[in-house]
Amino acid sequence: MFLTRRFKHCPSCGGQVAYQVPADDNRERATCTVCAAIHYENPLNVVGTLPVWEEQVLLCKRAIEPRYGKWTLPAGFMELGETTAEGALRETDEEAGARIELQPLYCVHNVVQAGQVHFFYRARLLSPAFNPGPETLEARLFSEDEIPWDELAFRTVRETLVRFFEDRRRGQGYGLHSADIR
Amino acid sequence: MFLTRRFKHCPSCGGQVAYQVPADDNRERATCTVCAAIHYENPLNVVGTLPVWEEQVLLCKRAIEPRYGKWTLPAGFMELGETTAEGALRETDEEAGARIELQPLYCVHNVVQAGQVHFFYRARLLSPAFNPGPETLEARLFSEDEIPWDELAFRTVRETLVRFFEDRRRGQGYGLHSADIR
Repeated sequence: MFLTRRFKHCPSCGGQVAYQVPADDNRERATCTVCAAIHYENPLNVVGTLPVWEEQVLLCKRAIEPRYGKWTLPAGFMELGETTAEGALRETDEEAGARIELQPLYCVHNVVQAGQVHFFYRARLLSPAFNPGPETLEARLFSEDEIPWDELAFRTVRETLVRFFEDRRRGQGYGLHSADIR
Repeated sequence: MFLTRRFKHCPSCGGQVAYQVPADDNRERATCTVCAAIHYENPLNVVGTLPVWEEQVLLCKRAIEPRYGKWTLPAGFMELGETTAEGALRETDEEAGARIELQPLYCVHNVVQAGQVHFFYRARLLSPAFNPGPETLEARLFSEDEIPWDELAFRTVRETLVRFFEDRRRGQGYGLHSADIR
């Protein structure tokens, strides 16, 4: 679902909002009928990591909706005041309590219907001990043949894992992958 | 400047907003004192291209604030309903009226104080004829020694151009570059 048309009132003055195309624009925007302020709605970034320990990767079992009980790479919404890399590191700490060394950006996937861009950095786990936060039921390592492919929370997580195991088998480096999910 | 604390009223019900830390959170969020809705503020994406024609790159002279009259690569805010690549293509068309073939993602720069992530794709110009839109005073090609380094609009534009000319001189491919600007 699009996160569009979520404004009913103006965040500045509280007046009623109407969706209309401003004079110098070509899209409907939340426009205040009282103070005329225009409020934009844009895609959000989700930042996370693909943490690796020897032959295994770290997945987290979600303790929150959406996709409660499904497995994900540690990731969450990027916050103001941080970089994409800092956000990925923070989410890995918050969701898995995992100590990692961040490696290069590996995937930038567009999730068009959700209005999201998902970033995943490769990461080297510094320890196989985890301390999951309240958003995670369980954090554990999986070898490739143990990955719960039918129990993954998000298509971008699947896409990132598929690319990773392919690249690892091929043995010619990792590069950057992008997929568009609609 | 941070685009934070921009909510005074609740976009859902129009009630007064207070910035406070929700029970399951660790950051202050815009929380409605009437309906209790929480409204998040997150970084935004700016998407654009580095269009190349033979030895030259395309820059646009801005017809809007901020940085009126300064030179930029064609770029703008990513919109809901599009991918980062589609947004980059759209902005190149809107700002320069340039016909391009998109190439791989080249730069992902974090502009922390602005709460923005800037994406630049390399692009091959299909024609050296441009048709600038209302946000652009002039669109023209520059060889490396003509770049108006002191008249560039944004640090991410400078960073992208510096990396590009370095990579081109080195002749070993372009890869992905990231810079953190605070």
